[in-house]
Amino acid sequence: MPQKQPSQSTPPILYDLVTADQVPLSPWCWHVKMALAHKGIEAETIPLTFSEKDQVIAAGGKSFPLLIDAKGQPIDDSRLIISHLEEAYPSPTLFPGGDAGWASFNFIHRYTQTALFPTIIAMILVDIPKVLTPQDQAYFIASREKRFGMSLEDFCRKREDLRPQLHTQLDPFRKAMLSGGFIAGSAPAMVDYILFGVLQWARVTSPFPLYDKNDDLHRWMEDMLDLFDGLGRGAAAFSAG
Amino acid sequence: MPQKQPSQSTPPILYDLVTADQVPLSPWCWHVKMALAHKGIEAETIPLTFSEKDQVIAAGGKSFPLLIDAKGQPIDDSRLIISHLEEAYPSPTLFPGGDAGWASFNFIHRYTQTALFPTIIAMILVDIPKVLTPQDQAYFIASREKRFGMSLEDFCRKREDLRPQLHTQLDPFRKAMLSGGFIAGSAPAMVDYILFGVLQWARVTSPFPLYDKNDDLHRWMEDMLDLFDGLGRGAAAFSAG
Repeated sequence: MPQKQPSQSTPPILYDLVTADQVPLSPWCWHVKMALAHKGIEAETIPLTFSEKDQVIAAGGKSFPLLIDAKGQPIDDSRLIISHLEEAYPSPTLFPGGDAGWASFNFIHRYTQTALFPTIIAMILVDIPKVLTPQDQAYFIASREKRFGMSLEDFCRKREDLRPQLHTQLDPFRKAMLSGGFIAGSAPAMVDYILFGVLQWARVTSPFPLYDKNDDLHRWMEDMLDLFDGLGRGAAAFSAG
Repeated sequence: MPQKQPSQSTPPILYDLVTADQVPLSPWCWHVKMALAHKGIEAETIPLTFSEKDQVIAAGGKSFPLLIDAKGQPIDDSRLIISHLEEAYPSPTLFPGGDAGWASFNFIHRYTQTALFPTIIAMILVDIPKVLTPQDQAYFIASREKRFGMSLEDFCRKREDLRPQLHTQLDPFRKAMLSGGFIAGSAPAMVDYILFGVLQWARVTSPFPLYDKNDDLHRWMEDMLDLFDGLGRGAAAFSAG
């Protein structure tokens, strides 16, 4: 292996998407934030609103999250950032279990994107503008109404009816937790941060409850919020946390 | 650890559900059959039709699959059987990756039950009676019409429309395979046998194609059918295999 270059001691920089109250809200940014904390990497964070995205472009990225690595290279896809962190900082691993850990991550990441995210966005989208700056609100509402072809109110009109579907979609996570408290087993790892990112996004942007207080997911989420000196809990939330 | 008892050298016995042509059809039985083969356990198999289930009851079980273990104890839930096999015959493991492997199995098993199985049964149920004995056909049609509250034809009437949903639901498996060819990584393990059981059930009972020949799942299924001297391929199928 090549010797580490002096430039590698520069801390990485994370361009992070935040609310009007400077609370990080993006699920994909939360994935990266938890991965950095897991590895004990002290990254510099640049909190930006949607309207300040030109700073991401100027730094060489296309969207949030953008990481400028220790060598000054921009990486702007959360999956690529996570892979980079695992390669550049192997210990402690984000993927315990070797091959099986990577396969489980790939499975759960895709499942979260294709099943969980579409359900949850149809439950919380209408609430998100309320936590944004006025300028971001205008952008967010216009861009999402265009993307979904309807008002945010209409997009979320049946959100109460989605509870059973979400409960079923979350059930595989509950079963995985039986192996030792976390989705990855006895200690949290990237598969936990994947689910956490999506639930934390809902937690900081919407008062709409996604699961009951007596749900095992609630116990798990409380444990997740306590990790890394309460990194997640420190972010203000609608739900009591 | 206690010494092995002489009775432990008795081969286990599997009560297996079969079609009129003696082809094993149950996804849960296929899970056990693949787990036994994975561990190189030579089990005695007793092939039975639905109408011969009284033999399962007489042997101490409630339903298929029933395993009589090496000590003569009946175990009649596929998850319990798989756990028993892993404990009694630890090597080679069905759950590579330790904690992560077990968590991944629990996740994928539940996902298969709650997402994949309901979609696939709505695509193939109407075809299943055609592979059963006349006596089984009458039982199967009556019991399923009662369970679903409609004719099998009505239950499967929209099956063509379910293709996009199934494609999306299978996508996490495709992503997991990127880690090394199989869902578990570079070699197949229990998470592969979980998906295989459900697709094999469809393969031996229905000519309705669930995915394209150029789908990566088709490549994986071909590899799965070749395992253990073609254990799965030996079972007659509607689709060319």
